[in-house]
Formats: sequence, structure tokens, C-alpha cells
Amino acid sequence: MHQIDINCDMGEGFGIYSTGNSIAMLDYVSSANIACGYHAGDPAVMHETVQAAIQKNVAIGAHPSFPDLQGFGRRNMTLSPQEVFQVTLYQIGALAAFVIAGKGRLHHVKPHGALYNMASVNRQLADAIATAVAVYDPSLIVYGLAGSELIIAAGKAGLRVAAEAFADRAYQANGLLCPRTQKGAVIDDSNEVERQVLSIVRDQSVTTAEGSSIQIKADTICIHSDSLHAFEHVKGIHKKLKAENIILKAPAQK
Amino acid sequence: MHQIDINCDMGEGFGIYSTGNSIAMLDYVSSANIACGYHAGDPAVMHETVQAAIQKNVAIGAHPSFPDLQGFGRRNMTLSPQEVFQVTLYQIGALAAFVIAGKGRLHHVKPHGALYNMASVNRQLADAIATAVAVYDPSLIVYGLAGSELIIAAGKAGLRVAAEAFADRAYQANGLLCPRTQKGAVIDDSNEVERQVLSIVRDQSVTTAEGSSIQIKADTICIHSDSLHAFEHVKGIHKKLKAENIILKAPAQK
Amino acid sequence: MHQIDINCDMGEGFGIYSTGNSIAMLDYVSSANIACGYHAGDPAVMHETVQAAIQKNVAIGAHPSFPDLQGFGRRNMTLSPQEVFQVTLYQIGALAAFVIAGKGRLHHVKPHGALYNMASVNRQLADAIATAVAVYDPSLIVYGLAGSELIIAAGKAGLRVAAEAFADRAYQANGLLCPRTQKGAVIDDSNEVERQVLSIVRDQSVTTAEGSSIQIKADTICIHSDSLHAFEHVKGIHKKLKAENIILKAPAQK
Amino acid sequence: MHQIDINCDMGEGFGIYSTGNSIAMLDYVSSANIACGYHAGDPAVMHETVQAAIQKNVAIGAHPSFPDLQGFGRRNMTLSPQEVFQVTLYQIGALAAFVIAGKGRLHHVKPHGALYNMASVNRQLADAIATAVAVYDPSLIVYGLAGSELIIAAGKAGLRVAAEAFADRAYQANGLLCPRTQKGAVIDDSNEVERQVLSIVRDQSVTTAEGSSIQIKADTICIHSDSLHAFEHVKGIHKKLKAENIILKAPAQK
Repeated sequence: MHQIDINCDMGEGFGIYSTGNSIAMLDYVSSANIACGYHAGDPAVMHETVQAAIQKNVAIGAHPSFPDLQGFGRRNMTLSPQEVFQVTLYQIGALAAFVIAGKGRLHHVKPHGALYNMASVNRQLADAIATAVAVYDPSLIVYGLAGSELIIAAGKAGLRVAAEAFADRAYQANGLLCPRTQKGAVIDDSNEVERQVLSIVRDQSVTTAEGSSIQIKADTICIHSDSLHAFEHVKGIHKKLKAENIILKAPAQK
Repeated sequence: MHQIDINCDMGEGFGIYSTGNSIAMLDYVSSANIACGYHAGDPAVMHETVQAAIQKNVAIGAHPSFPDLQGFGRRNMTLSPQEVFQVTLYQIGALAAFVIAGKGRLHHVKPHGALYNMASVNRQLADAIATAVAVYDPSLIVYGLAGSELIIAAGKAGLRVAAEAFADRAYQANGLLCPRTQKGAVIDDSNEVERQVLSIVRDQSVTTAEGSSIQIKADTICIHSDSLHAFEHVKGIHKKLKAENIILKAPAQK
Repeated sequence: MHQIDINCDMGEGFGIYSTGNSIAMLDYVSSANIACGYHAGDPAVMHETVQAAIQKNVAIGAHPSFPDLQGFGRRNMTLSPQEVFQVTLYQIGALAAFVIAGKGRLHHVKPHGALYNMASVNRQLADAIATAVAVYDPSLIVYGLAGSELIIAAGKAGLRVAAEAFADRAYQANGLLCPRTQKGAVIDDSNEVERQVLSIVRDQSVTTAEGSSIQIKADTICIHSDSLHAFEHVKGIHKKLKAENIILKAPAQK
Repeated sequence: MHQIDINCDMGEGFGIYSTGNSIAMLDYVSSANIACGYHAGDPAVMHETVQAAIQKNVAIGAHPSFPDLQGFGRRNMTLSPQEVFQVTLYQIGALAAFVIAGKGRLHHVKPHGALYNMASVNRQLADAIATAVAVYDPSLIVYGLAGSELIIAAGKAGLRVAAEAFADRAYQANGLLCPRTQKGAVIDDSNEVERQVLSIVRDQSVTTAEGSSIQIKADTICIHSDSLHAFEHVKGIHKKLKAENIILKAPAQK
């Protein structure tokens, strides 16, 4: 019997602002990565989102970022590994406070945006994040790009990891995502998205943009919650997984 | 045998900026209230300050504030009780992360500046802070102005409290501090500061600005670390307490 | 022949976030109050909004606020008059830069949210804002609540003023707005909103929530752009004004 | 008769924080680059610093930065050229407001920290800054590293430029500064600093760290105001220039 985790970024509003990734999506995912105030998410948004996730029994992850509200954490910044360690620790602790207040348990950490991308290829930054997670709570699971430096660093730090694939992104033959600037890099069609998810779950493979098939081993699949069709995608995936008797479930903590 | 806690605000630098309340003061106090990023204190400053406090065996408190870096948290803001609950929880969690990372234990929470003042007289805000502390960790001690709404609220929330007096501030006959705009409101002379501390500790009384004597029951005495003579004061008090066989010690947690 | 100015807050997005007050509203108003980065509006949003307003020939106003992105500038803060002068000057200059870049001309200043409300009743804050406007450019017009301290202060500072009434807010018999907590304080029905606008323009009067008629002299009418029906309201008003041969026009600068 | 401009970063405090670059340095320099709120400098600091510079007849420059208060603008960020144009324009306008309020005239623009460094070698960013300056006020002078992309871009944009050399930094044979990580990269000895200034002014040359002599053509010399010996250096240079009959003067605007 197959099993998979579907994760989604949540709580990415700020003040009066909200984004598309509404709390309603919690009904269809098993893990939520919740913003911690650095790229999005003020204490009110964090509070509300964490409460909803606990109520819906969705596994809660901290979603730390570079300090860049204006750029939504999507702009590279040259922080030292020490600084990355410190901002990661700060944000994990801040989010954990709301989880503790709600009598929940923090489940994982997934870096956001530019920090995620940089830590995928920069071992020092990856180590900094892994260390921050390990010293805070060694039972937390690190979510990262399959095959990335972050996954390697977290493993070396003795942490459980969840290798991540993407439901609505086209892949290249080398296993990397097609850059967003490329036509077709984001998959809009729900049927295609569902096909890719099933292929990852059952066959550990995806069909690349060029048409070849590559191996991909994923413990969790990310739905981009701010994409145009996010809600539609996530409902479709949820239904399809159910129909195919695939269990939707967050990875187990130590 | 007498015993008293001396507390001091710490970690109030930010980025390249530092303030007078240097880490060296940790040698002379029993409790440190460490800024959490809202009025001062970025993750790097918090990390360094918490590490030093753990090493010096000084009890660590979170020092949450209104979100007002420009005004150093000294400007009143009309946050709702719910918002105060949320920003307090956020900041406690953020600071606690560094304490956990250093294998220490968070000891207390003392609101900063305008939040401290407003929560002293506004029961709803006081309740919000007390609730945030209680849901995060009911073994944390709330530091607040002796006789304030905050002390009352924390007690009702089942928390231990530490009633606070001030070493270097002149008192009025009604037990309140002389406003800073009044001449002599801040006591500059170290001998006088030490005399006031001893009087509070041994006689539970202070001599007011007008010359009368009033009762004051304090569990902790605050040294304003950003005052001109803070370091001088704190060293003098430390020496005097030792000479008088008064034990310098943070209040015990549950 | 009657003439009126319709003003609307604009450019209140931030980063990836946008609000309801879309650039499309510029087709139906004569004045736009553009956020300056303190409660909303980053440089990218300001740039885009100013460019659109210049293109649509809408009079551009700076919309300065307390520094409170998290609270959208709606929370009272106790800044000194000197601080209010400084933050107002800063924000006017920042917005003006985009107007200069677009070869437009800055037309007015209207404080936002809590700053607007506090300056309506606090003469010192009103003077601080008026002084900031006057030293920057004495040809700028100050928009403020009809009869407020801000209007008085601006007049004394030698500035032109535009007294403001509200299209979609119910009035009390004393001329003040019904508090938002009161049922019916915000008028949702477009017909009623249009009726109130016409009544203000042609009869200098409004019918209060209690049903009496009071005098009101307004140079400009505000449409709350973030209300549910803002776009509908503003289109309806625009059409009605045209049908009634009332000229929609921003007040003239010196 | 020789003439040179000495420029210095100023107004880099924030809130209660101040840095070494005190207003007293204004007595010894001809140009001040004043922080605009993004890496340092809140409206109060900007107001005070601009007023002092006007009073001391020191030429005032805007000193825009990446939005990074925590990192003091010293961390690289990947902003698009459009974003750099927008944040530069915002900051120039904000600073100019205080100059206008003081009836002074804005004189130049010098990017700060990481933005300065990136614009020295990245033509697109250099063009973005030059364009922002040119659309705001084409009589403003751009200060940049001698031979940098910024100097080239500003020239192409029709702006006057001031090529900058450094008083207290050691040079490499290729004309670049020795990296700060290299021993001797920062010159601490005041005599040596003064010698380097005189050599740049009179001989258009410096002796490199390796001992060779290279040509350097500078219109302005920067004193790092936050260095340990900044005040000592600047006073020594001022005295030496006077003794040598070298005129201390900011470059003329169009």
C-alpha cells in the first residue's frame, strides 16, 4: 500500500494582507509549512494558522526565511552560516511557541524561497540550518529538495529527512526543476499535476519536459499554494489519492 | 539571612549597534531580561547574550516589547489584548530557542518599556501577557512592578511572580516612581543607589523624594542598564550585598 | 455648476500583497492618496501607482502613516510632535521622488489611519503635520476631516486645505462619524452612498443615522477603497456625478 | 593650487543607537553621505544630521542602501535593476525632504555598502542607480569607486561624477582595494593615512601594499567614519591639507 505526504506553504499573509493559500487547503494536505514572520506571517497570522492546523490534524512545520518581507524571502542574501543558524533558530522558536500554546507538536522545518534554494546547493548554509534544527529539537524532520545539500546535511546531523518533489513543476532530464522562465515550467493543468503525483508515488519517476522518464524518490510532494490553481490542484490530488488507495500521511517523527 | 534578585535588561543591541548594557554586567546580576527582536536584539545579539548568560549562570528572562525598533519599544501603542498575547508568545518562543540551543532553561518574562507600563495599569493587557506566559510554560516567573495589574494577573493565572522595585529611581509617597521629567527622578549617586537597595532588601522600605518612608515589598530589584552609571551602580551593589551577607539569587521556578 | 473632488486611498499593497483598491479605481476618482511605505506601499508599489495616477491625470497625494506595517497604520502610537513632523517629512519626500521621476506634480497630503484620527483632535500633532507639509512645499493642499484640528492647523500654516466628508459612512447628529462598531456605520448600499454624495455636493448636508439633517461643508469626498463595494460605489458615484452635470475635479493648488 | 573633497558617511545611527561617526566630524570634511533609513538612519537621525550639515556648510549626499537594517546594508541582495532603481529613488526623495526643509540643496548620491560594491562591477545595477539619480535631479553628482561601472553609467546618463579613493585602505597593484581579510588592508596609522591622501591629491598615485606605485585619479577621498581612528584621521588630514595649502572643497554641481 502506497503512502505519501502532501505539503503546502501556509500562513503567508501579513497584517491585513492575505494570500491565496487559505486555511481551507488544510483539509487536503498532510503537512503545512507555516511562515515565521521573516518573509510573511505576523504573530496573528501564525496564531490563527497554527490553531487551524492543529484542529485539522495537519503536521506543522516551521518555514523560516531570510529577513526580507519586501521581497517575500525570494531574493538571495549573503548571510554567513552563523547568521543563517541564528535566524533559523529564531524563527523555529517563534513558530513553536504557537504550537506549544495550542498543545500541538512541531513536526518539521522547511526553509523558504531563496534560503531553500541556496541551502540546496551550499553545504555550509545547509549545515547551519540542520544544526539549528538539531539543537532545537532532534525529533524534527527536515524537508528539502530531493538530493540536495540540505538533505545530506540534515542526515549527517542525525535528523530524519523528507525528500521533496513538486506536483506542479516540470523537471529536466538531470532531475532539476525547469527554471520558471521556461515555458511550461509550471504545470497548470490539474490532470497533468495529478498524473505527476501518482507517477512519483507509485513509480518513483516523472516524465521530464523533454519527454524522457527519470527516477525520483520523494517522501513528500509540495503543492505551491500561491499558484493560480493551487486549491483546485490540491483537491484533485486529494481525491485521486483516495481513489487509488494511497494513504495521505506526514512522515513519522522519532 | 536576606536574599534578593538583581535584574538587568540585556542584549539590547541590534545589528552593528550596541548599548551600554554590556555582557560584563552579567558578572554582577542574578537575572537578565533579554530583548527579543521587537524593540532591540536581533538573532545574533540574542544568541551571544543568551550564551553568555548561561555561562555566567544568570537566570534568563524574555523581554518582549511592542513592535517598535525605531522607538525602542518606549512608545505606547494601542494593540488589542489578543495582539499583545500573540506578540508576547512570539517573542518568548524566539528567545527560548536560543536558551534551548544552549541547554539552558528559560526562567522568567518581563515586558519592556511601554508594554511594561501599560500592562502595569491595564488589566486586559496584563491578562494577555500572563496568559501567553502560562500557555507557553507555567513554570516561568512573571516580573512586574510591585502592586501592578501585571502581578495580579500573573498570580490569577497560577504563575509565580517577582514584584519589582528600582535601585536608581526616586519614589513618590504613593509608592509610584517619580516621573522622569521630575528633577531627581533618576538617582545618579552610587552611594544613594546602594542605600536604597539595602533599605528595600532589609527594611522593605524606601525613603521617598519628599523624605518620608514608605513600605515596599520587592522580590527583585531592577538596575537600568542603559543609564549613565549602570555599570558602576551594579558593581557597587554587588560589593555591598556581599559585604552585608545578602545572597544574590534569582527566584526559584516551580 | 457644482464641482467636487473624490479621493481614494491607493497603492496600499506591499511586496507580493495587494489590496482591493486596484489601479482601475483611478478611472473614477480625481485624487489618490498613495501609501508611502510606513503602513503599506513599498517602492515598487509606489512607483507603479504613481505612474498610473500620472497617466490617468489623477491628483497625487502623499498618505503618510505611523511606522506600523503589521497594524496597517491603524493603531494609535504616542509619537512626539517632533517625531510626527519627521516621519511625515520623510514619507512626503519618498513619495514625491516617484512623482518627480514621472514628471508629475505632488498635489496634496492626507495622513492615514491612526495618524489621521489623532491629528483630527490633537492640535500639536496637527501642527507637526502642517509644518512638515509647509516646509516641504507650501503649495501642497492638506486633506483632513472637516472641522478637525488638522484643517485648522494647516490653515494657520498658510496652506490650502480640503475639508473631507465620507461617502459610505453614517453621520451622527453632532457631525461626527458613527463609530464602526455601530450597526449601519458603514453604508453598503450603492444607491444610498450616491444619495449621500449628491446631498453633500448640492445641499451641503447629510441625513444622520437618526434621520435628522445636518450641515456639512466638504471640498472632497473620500471613498474607502478597501471596503467590500468600493469599486461598485466609485463607479456608481462617477456615473451619477456625470448625469447630474457635477464636475469631478481636484482642488487647485496655489 | 590643489583641491580635494573629503567625504564621510554620516547619520548612521538608528533610534536610540548611535555610531562613531559623530556630527563633530562635519567640521573636518567637505561632503557627508547621509543614511536614508534602509541600512541606518531613521527620520529623527536624518533630520538632525542634515540640519548639522547645512549649518556646517558640508555638501549633503544621499547614501541609499539595500533594505537591510539588521545587516547594516553590508550583505549582498539580489534585487532586480528595477528594484534597485525604485529603492534608490525612494531613499533619495526621503533624504531630500530634510534638505528641502532646511533650505539646503542636495549635492550628491553615493550608494552604501553592498549596493556600492555590487554597482561597482554590475553595469545593470549601476545603470539603475544612475537613472534614479538622473530622473530625480540631473544636477546631482554620483560618487563611486574610481573606474567602476557606476562611474561609467553615471557619465553615460549625463551626470557629473566624483571618482573616489580611500584614505585608510591599502591598494593592490591592479588598482583594487586589498580585501579586508588581508592583514594591513585597513591602515590604522594616521601618518600613513595622511601620506596616502597627500599622494593621491598631489601625485595622483598611491603606493600599493606590495610597495609599487600606481596611478589613481580621484575627485573625492573617503574616510571610513566607523573605523576605530576615524575622528583622529579626519582631523589629521584636515590639518595636513591646510598646512599644504590644499583646498578642501566638494565638487561643483551643474
